[in-house]
Amino acid sequence: MKLDQYRLTEEPAYHASGNEVAFYEAAYEARLPVMLKGPTGCGKTRFVEHMAWKLGKPLITVSCHEDMTASDLVGRFLLGPEGTHWQDGPLTLAVRYGAICYLDEIVEARQDTTVVIHSLTDDRRILPLEKKGELVHAHPDFQLVISYNPGYQSVLKDLKESTKQRFCAMDFTYPAAGIETAIVASESGVAPDVAGRLVRIAEKSRHLRGQGLEEGASTRMLIHAGRLMRSGMSLTDACRLALILPITDDPDMRDALEAAVDACA
Amino acid sequence: MKLDQYRLTEEPAYHASGNEVAFYEAAYEARLPVMLKGPTGCGKTRFVEHMAWKLGKPLITVSCHEDMTASDLVGRFLLGPEGTHWQDGPLTLAVRYGAICYLDEIVEARQDTTVVIHSLTDDRRILPLEKKGELVHAHPDFQLVISYNPGYQSVLKDLKESTKQRFCAMDFTYPAAGIETAIVASESGVAPDVAGRLVRIAEKSRHLRGQGLEEGASTRMLIHAGRLMRSGMSLTDACRLALILPITDDPDMRDALEAAVDACA
Amino acid sequence: MKLDQYRLTEEPAYHASGNEVAFYEAAYEARLPVMLKGPTGCGKTRFVEHMAWKLGKPLITVSCHEDMTASDLVGRFLLGPEGTHWQDGPLTLAVRYGAICYLDEIVEARQDTTVVIHSLTDDRRILPLEKKGELVHAHPDFQLVISYNPGYQSVLKDLKESTKQRFCAMDFTYPAAGIETAIVASESGVAPDVAGRLVRIAEKSRHLRGQGLEEGASTRMLIHAGRLMRSGMSLTDACRLALILPITDDPDMRDALEAAVDACA
Amino acid sequence: MKLDQYRLTEEPAYHASGNEVAFYEAAYEARLPVMLKGPTGCGKTRFVEHMAWKLGKPLITVSCHEDMTASDLVGRFLLGPEGTHWQDGPLTLAVRYGAICYLDEIVEARQDTTVVIHSLTDDRRILPLEKKGELVHAHPDFQLVISYNPGYQSVLKDLKESTKQRFCAMDFTYPAAGIETAIVASESGVAPDVAGRLVRIAEKSRHLRGQGLEEGASTRMLIHAGRLMRSGMSLTDACRLALILPITDDPDMRDALEAAVDACA
Amino acid sequence: MKLDQYRLTEEPAYHASGNEVAFYEAAYEARLPVMLKGPTGCGKTRFVEHMAWKLGKPLITVSCHEDMTASDLVGRFLLGPEGTHWQDGPLTLAVRYGAICYLDEIVEARQDTTVVIHSLTDDRRILPLEKKGELVHAHPDFQLVISYNPGYQSVLKDLKESTKQRFCAMDFTYPAAGIETAIVASESGVAPDVAGRLVRIAEKSRHLRGQGLEEGASTRMLIHAGRLMRSGMSLTDACRLALILPITDDPDMRDALEAAVDACA
Amino acid sequence: MKLDQYRLTEEPAYHASGNEVAFYEAAYEARLPVMLKGPTGCGKTRFVEHMAWKLGKPLITVSCHEDMTASDLVGRFLLGPEGTHWQDGPLTLAVRYGAICYLDEIVEARQDTTVVIHSLTDDRRILPLEKKGELVHAHPDFQLVISYNPGYQSVLKDLKESTKQRFCAMDFTYPAAGIETAIVASESGVAPDVAGRLVRIAEKSRHLRGQGLEEGASTRMLIHAGRLMRSGMSLTDACRLALILPITDDPDMRDALEAAVDACA
Repeated sequence: MKLDQYRLTEEPAYHASGNEVAFYEAAYEARLPVMLKGPTGCGKTRFVEHMAWKLGKPLITVSCHEDMTASDLVGRFLLGPEGTHWQDGPLTLAVRYGAICYLDEIVEARQDTTVVIHSLTDDRRILPLEKKGELVHAHPDFQLVISYNPGYQSVLKDLKESTKQRFCAMDFTYPAAGIETAIVASESGVAPDVAGRLVRIAEKSRHLRGQGLEEGASTRMLIHAGRLMRSGMSLTDACRLALILPITDDPDMRDALEAAVDACA
Repeated sequence: MKLDQYRLTEEPAYHASGNEVAFYEAAYEARLPVMLKGPTGCGKTRFVEHMAWKLGKPLITVSCHEDMTASDLVGRFLLGPEGTHWQDGPLTLAVRYGAICYLDEIVEARQDTTVVIHSLTDDRRILPLEKKGELVHAHPDFQLVISYNPGYQSVLKDLKESTKQRFCAMDFTYPAAGIETAIVASESGVAPDVAGRLVRIAEKSRHLRGQGLEEGASTRMLIHAGRLMRSGMSLTDACRLALILPITDDPDMRDALEAAVDACA
Repeated sequence: MKLDQYRLTEEPAYHASGNEVAFYEAAYEARLPVMLKGPTGCGKTRFVEHMAWKLGKPLITVSCHEDMTASDLVGRFLLGPEGTHWQDGPLTLAVRYGAICYLDEIVEARQDTTVVIHSLTDDRRILPLEKKGELVHAHPDFQLVISYNPGYQSVLKDLKESTKQRFCAMDFTYPAAGIETAIVASESGVAPDVAGRLVRIAEKSRHLRGQGLEEGASTRMLIHAGRLMRSGMSLTDACRLALILPITDDPDMRDALEAAVDACA
Repeated sequence: MKLDQYRLTEEPAYHASGNEVAFYEAAYEARLPVMLKGPTGCGKTRFVEHMAWKLGKPLITVSCHEDMTASDLVGRFLLGPEGTHWQDGPLTLAVRYGAICYLDEIVEARQDTTVVIHSLTDDRRILPLEKKGELVHAHPDFQLVISYNPGYQSVLKDLKESTKQRFCAMDFTYPAAGIETAIVASESGVAPDVAGRLVRIAEKSRHLRGQGLEEGASTRMLIHAGRLMRSGMSLTDACRLALILPITDDPDMRDALEAAVDACA
Repeated sequence: MKLDQYRLTEEPAYHASGNEVAFYEAAYEARLPVMLKGPTGCGKTRFVEHMAWKLGKPLITVSCHEDMTASDLVGRFLLGPEGTHWQDGPLTLAVRYGAICYLDEIVEARQDTTVVIHSLTDDRRILPLEKKGELVHAHPDFQLVISYNPGYQSVLKDLKESTKQRFCAMDFTYPAAGIETAIVASESGVAPDVAGRLVRIAEKSRHLRGQGLEEGASTRMLIHAGRLMRSGMSLTDACRLALILPITDDPDMRDALEAAVDACA
Repeated sequence: MKLDQYRLTEEPAYHASGNEVAFYEAAYEARLPVMLKGPTGCGKTRFVEHMAWKLGKPLITVSCHEDMTASDLVGRFLLGPEGTHWQDGPLTLAVRYGAICYLDEIVEARQDTTVVIHSLTDDRRILPLEKKGELVHAHPDFQLVISYNPGYQSVLKDLKESTKQRFCAMDFTYPAAGIETAIVASESGVAPDVAGRLVRIAEKSRHLRGQGLEEGASTRMLIHAGRLMRSGMSLTDACRLALILPITDDPDMRDALEAAVDACA
């Protein structure tokens, strides 16, 4: 009941690229914590949604950030008419009632957030609520999943070795052209050949990575472009708004990206 | 009802420079989040007001700053006679009841403010109120708009790549001379030829940018000068107070700007 | 009623140096925000008091500092017997009931304090009380005035360009000798020739600026010296206590200033 | 009663490598505080659990982190219907009612957390609750244990000399091959020969330490691999997910580790 | 009534070194704020106590430090059975009811503490209690006094020029030998010739300043030594405990100071 | 009554090394504040306990740390059923009811903690409770004692000169061999010859100080080793656990220390 709002009501579309579904199922069967590695917008969040739906488990997602505290995850005392009462945080909800808890971009969080998961990721599977003086033993359905973008980590902000070693890891990247075309077509509603042209533009932009562009166009941006076209915009205008202007202000890079669009228009 | 005070009661004047109105309508139809890029005082805020009025939607504007927290956007518990109760923040109001939410100069905000919009800017369109244990599904009318001034960003303060990729972007700059003259005349009440002289002064000041001036005179400053003239001041005095003294203390730069004023007086 | 304690009950003496009174009246008529630029103790605060008295408006002055938060300006919830109630801060009082609000040395404040004035300094003239969920439309009498000492600004602590452009600016400096003599005589009660000698000493000290002295003696310091003389102290002692010891501990600089005093004693 | 949830209900498996059990018993008999030194995942936490079970004492474990305050350990006032009441923190619970208190990775904690244990680790054995004005004399069963990973300490983050000197220390490292094989087999459920192959892979990875790898595979990671194999995964896939992907993104290092896996597959 | 506990009940002994008493009386008559400059322990605090007693005014002393906030000076809301009520801070007490307020070592305080005194140190003589929405007009007896040790200031921690200019300043240093001998004898109870020997030792130690000693022995330290002798200690032991060990751990410097003691024993 | 729990109920053993007992008695008779200087674990805390017992005064000990605030020492308002009430901190308890207050490692504390003792350490002997608006005059029995380890101080963290000058100081170091042997024997229960061997090992380790060892073995560590031997451990094992492993991880240094142990075993 507590977790009803976290159940997925329809199947999230997912196009598998390899064995990732079977691998995840094995990790879930062993209740091992899982780390999803890969660049922004390549489908990690969608994959977790798909797996939660497939396994029939509720999914609680938390976007981590550097001002997030352990209390934001674990819970806190709130003041009510009868004095303070405890309110479970999203992690405690998942642990207590049995959900998959997905901590998105965990390296952004402060250390206390990271350390709080240690006793959940070894064989103890317990969560101490120190402020409340309670030890929560994890529900058998509980599993912890985190995402991690290796390209973003710096020396200052990385997971501690003692944290990394607690996870099984799976690599993600952009899907192969055929699969990405199918995704863009189904998610945005454009015709497959239009989707294919968008994917070719994305591939060109990804080759510019490291030559002045931090990242190429993601699958999500292609879907944005497709949806703008569905609202009546031309491919050139849609790509300009959805693929070029958001990611660069450098005139040369904009020219290079517009040339890529023109070549596929 | 909750949003009544955020509805625009009269049409905000806007002079279009290109296809920006149609582009925005397409993005709104697809409910894609929009990023407005451009320098200070060139009309981004007015454009959003105009579009909100045109689309008949309420508009909630938040000026971001580095001491703003996620709670300032999302809401917080307040203590009342019956204990704590939840008060929606401006973003939650917009999400729940269906407004356009405009986050002005979002890069100034702390990261937790930026990350809070992630789940609103992909296909989930949800806002988790973690402190309250509620998942708010966005109202069909909700849209997120942010402004971004590329000239101001530094390495330390920039949007994360994973945030940028969630937006369609539109470029803004100062309007062409004829349009800017019309704006200054109608907003300040001076005669068109006076407005034209102010615009020519602004153009000269914008050429000094990068030669010791951080930015040239904005359209807003021209309107200020016009309004001072309407209060009885000479063009020279008005330009000195409204265009020169506020932006530079350098004697040479002041001389250069005064020469520009004299040339058009 | 709310603003009664902020009304000036007697005319603050002010000796004009140029057109500043007329300029300010024009800016107030157009309800443009005003920035007063100039060194410490040259009379900016007194000028605002004079103008508020002349225009018959209440004046709310806030000395800004780096630990001031937006809540200190805008207001906050306080806990009372019926739970929390909102208390308007000084800026909100001015906005709601129609006062001139003078933010002294605004660059000292934190950014959230600075950004909070943005929507008050363009044509919207609104103040969003986000914590309370209220949009306050400015009273027709409301005007914002800030002071700014260009000599003090560093790269780390300066107004943002997007803030500066929202203001009309007026330059202030120490008054001409004749006017300054009249001010010192009337404010401290010393005879005009004594006041004249104090002003000559100040002029000498101002020439030492940049040669080991951060600033010369201000008009305020001359008034202090005059008042010490009215309490029976000699000119030499009074100048030592009021003009020399407070601003330098360097023996050579003290000798130079004492020589200047001796030359006029 | 207060400590019932902290009693171990079944014997935690532990394979001794030397005299550590007798040494710990001697230290406990003298009620000396103990410091366990060694790398991540080599079994320090399991050892403390085993000793607590063997000695029949409750065990309270706290994972330290840099945002942990002394109040998190010692306790705090909470607001209830009758005003504030005191709630003992985990350390105070252990001191007052007689448990072993295990502070995991104590160097991560802030100094106030470290200093709070000083009066517990000399012959006074008292804990002052300054906020409450109470001096708690330690229960005869109380003992303090901390873990410390020498390889992780930096100049900025190390125990103060005056803290180190208060502890007896015991060294831990990865178990010898035969013992580690037995641990992996019994903990993961794989056959001994499979466990032996995993241990050989781990040994190879530990030789890569310092050549681009921060740490080699820990015993815990071998158990993860074994459990994935029990869920049906091949040794190669299981080692990739559990031993390689979590700890390195460097392609050469990944190749070297995969070669090590292939050699034992 | 409110200030009764701040009235001095007996005359604090003070041995004047020059015109400082008359100068202070002139400054108080003009109600000018006063800055006392000089090294640690030379009698600034005692001088203010003496003047407060002489003028028959209560004295409120605040030792400033870098964690002191404006609220610590001005006051704050406290929660009582009827909700929050305001409690005046020490500065507000002095302003409202008419005391001399002495801020000791003001440069140690945070900026908000410093800025709060601005409107009290010009002709306005008002203290805005922004949190309470009250403007307190200073009682006619109120005066502000601050101490300032020029030898301690660094670039990072100095009074702002705009603060310094608001004060009359008076220099203090160690008293002349005869006066200091009388002070030490009367304050510690030792015979005048013993006091004279202590003063000669102090003079020698002050010559070592800058040669490895941050400051020489202060008058206060001589009184300490005298009082130890009154408790039966020898001059050599008393000087070692009170003059040498507290201020240096350098063996050479200790030898030099002990030689100075021996020469006068 | 308030201080009953702070009275020592049995005599703490103390072996004097010189005149320190008489010196302390003289300082206490004059009620001068005392600073105890010396390395970790050499007996400073035990000395204060002994003196408090000898003088028949209660002793309140506070271990200082960098997150300790002035409120932790002085007291704070707590919320009760009738609203807030004041709770004295440990320093205020000592001042009000007459105890010796011992601030251990005071340089670790924040400045506000240090400054709060200023008015207690000159002839005023008062403690202002600014938050409460009360001036507490010290009880005649009150005395302040602080400890200070000169070897640990850095430029960033040292007592201010104006604080040091307020104290009489006494030097402490490790006791002479005969005395230390007696201490180790009586505190740990080992035979005098065993204690003598432990002291010889300690002397060797102290010679290694500065050659890679931050400090040698303290008297406390010898007592630890002795107590482990009383629990049945060999001298070699006991020295390894209690003297070597806690203070160094350097293999060469460990070898050197083990050689020292072997030479005395």
